[in-house]
Amino acid sequence: MRMFNKVVIIGTGLIGGSLGKAIKNKNLARIIFGLSRHKKNTRLAKKIGAIDIIGNDLRIVRGADLIILATPPDAIIDIALKIKDKLKKDCIVIDVGSTKEKIVSKLNLIFTNFVGCHPLAGSEKRGVVNLESSIFNSSICLITPTILTNKKALKKVKEFWIKIGSKVVVISPKKHDQALAQTSHLPHVVAFTLMNSIPENFLFLSSNGLRDTTRISGSDPDLWSRIFLSNRNNLLSAITSYQSKLESLKLALKNEDKKLLIKILKVAYKKREKLG
Amino acid sequence: MRMFNKVVIIGTGLIGGSLGKAIKNKNLARIIFGLSRHKKNTRLAKKIGAIDIIGNDLRIVRGADLIILATPPDAIIDIALKIKDKLKKDCIVIDVGSTKEKIVSKLNLIFTNFVGCHPLAGSEKRGVVNLESSIFNSSICLITPTILTNKKALKKVKEFWIKIGSKVVVISPKKHDQALAQTSHLPHVVAFTLMNSIPENFLFLSSNGLRDTTRISGSDPDLWSRIFLSNRNNLLSAITSYQSKLESLKLALKNEDKKLLIKILKVAYKKREKLG
Repeated sequence: MRMFNKVVIIGTGLIGGSLGKAIKNKNLARIIFGLSRHKKNTRLAKKIGAIDIIGNDLRIVRGADLIILATPPDAIIDIALKIKDKLKKDCIVIDVGSTKEKIVSKLNLIFTNFVGCHPLAGSEKRGVVNLESSIFNSSICLITPTILTNKKALKKVKEFWIKIGSKVVVISPKKHDQALAQTSHLPHVVAFTLMNSIPENFLFLSSNGLRDTTRISGSDPDLWSRIFLSNRNNLLSAITSYQSKLESLKLALKNEDKKLLIKILKVAYKKREKLG
Repeated sequence: MRMFNKVVIIGTGLIGGSLGKAIKNKNLARIIFGLSRHKKNTRLAKKIGAIDIIGNDLRIVRGADLIILATPPDAIIDIALKIKDKLKKDCIVIDVGSTKEKIVSKLNLIFTNFVGCHPLAGSEKRGVVNLESSIFNSSICLITPTILTNKKALKKVKEFWIKIGSKVVVISPKKHDQALAQTSHLPHVVAFTLMNSIPENFLFLSSNGLRDTTRISGSDPDLWSRIFLSNRNNLLSAITSYQSKLESLKLALKNEDKKLLIKILKVAYKKREKLG
C-alpha cells in the first residue's frame, strides 16, 4: 500500500539506490526522484528501476512527502541547510548515515519532521551498480529519535522500515555512535590495518581466514575516512581498548603463558558463538 | 590409481579425517587406519568412511606405506619419537602441521622419508564431524623440503597432494613460518582480539562486516594457542608491525588528517583487490 506520493532520494549509491528499488518493489510511493553528485549514478539508478525521475538540482525536493538523505555523513548537514526552505510543511526527512549524534542534533533543529535512521545493510561493494533491494530483508534498521522528534513522523518512519523488510530497533543517537564505533567502525579499522600489515609477497599464501577477516577492507576508502572522522572520539576510544586487549594477548604469547593464552582466546570464542 | 597399500592417519580431526575421506574418494590407498586421543573421533571417522580400521595404539604404524601426522603441532615431535623404530624402511611420513621450521628440522633427523606439508584447507569448524573431502579441491598445499629430504619421497608426496586435488607450492620451512605468521596466525590474533574488545551489550547490533571479520575467532582456543606458541617469534614480529600500522591510522584519525587517512585506507583497499 502506498505510504507516500513523492519520494526524493538524495545520494543514489548502494544504500540510496537499494532503498529506491525496495520502495518500488513494495509499492510504497507513487513516484521516486533521485539526485546524485554523479550523473552516472542516477542514470544507472533509473535504468535499474530504483528511481523514476532524475533530478537536476535540489529544487526537486519541492512537494516531496519523504526525503531520504543517503549521501556520505559529512555531506548531510550541508544539504539539509540547502533544502530546508523548499519543503512542504508535512514533509518527512530521514537520513541513513552511519553516525547519528551530530547529524540528528543539527537536523532536529533544521526540520520539523526529521527522524535519524541507520539501516545495517551496507556492504563493501559500493555504488548503485551493486544495489539489491533484498539487502534490507531481515536486517536491522536503527532509528534514533530524541525528545525533539515529531511523534507522528516517528510512527510513520517506523512503519516505513518495517514495510521495507527491516527489524526496527530504537536507540539514542549517543548510544548508537558508541555502539557502532565498536561493532562496525572498529572492525573496519582492524580489517584495513590487517591488510596494510601483511607483506605483499606473502599474499598468494592467503587462506579463507584472511579473506574473510579482510573482506571489509575492500570498502570505499573515501567514504570510510568520512565515517571514521564523523565518529572520531568514540572510535578513538574503541581503538584504544582494542590496543590494550591486543597487548595482553601479545604479552601472554611473549611469556609463553599457554594457560593465559587459552583463557584469552576462550573469552573471544564464547562471545563469537553468541554472534551466530 | 592406488599409490599406497596401508595408510595410517594419526589425529583424525577435521584435517586428518577430511584427508582420509579424500584418499578413499580418489582410491589412493587399499586400507586406511586411524588413531586419535579421542575414541569418539575415530569411531565417527570410521562411520563416515574416512578410515577403515580404528587403531588402539601407535603399533598400528607397522607395515604402513604412508603415515600422516595430523595432531596439533606440539604433539607431532613426541609421536614421531614414539613410532620411529616401528616403521618399515621405505615408509613415507608426512605431517600437516600449521608451523614447519621446528617440526621439519626434528623429523628430518628422525625419519628417512619425511616430507613436511601444510594444506591451507582448515576452517574454524573443528573435529571429524565437520569433515569434507572437498576442502582440498583447488586449495594450496605447502610442501617444505630441505636438503635432507629424500627426493623420491618428495616426488611421491607431491604427486599425492595433486591427486587429492591441491595445488602444490614448495617453500622453505623458515619462509613458510614467516609467511603463515602474517597470512594466518596474525589474522587469528586480530579476530580473537576484536571479539574480546567489543562490549557484549552491543553485539546485537552487529552487521555482516563484524561477523566476517571475526569468523575465525570461532576456532578452537586450545589448538590455536598451540599454533601461536609454535610460531611465537614470527608471530610476535607480525603483531608488532601490525601494532605500528594501527598506531599510524589512529594518529591520522586523532589529527583529523583526512588526506592521510584516505591514503592509508587506499593502500589496504588496493592490496585487498589482489586477494580476490
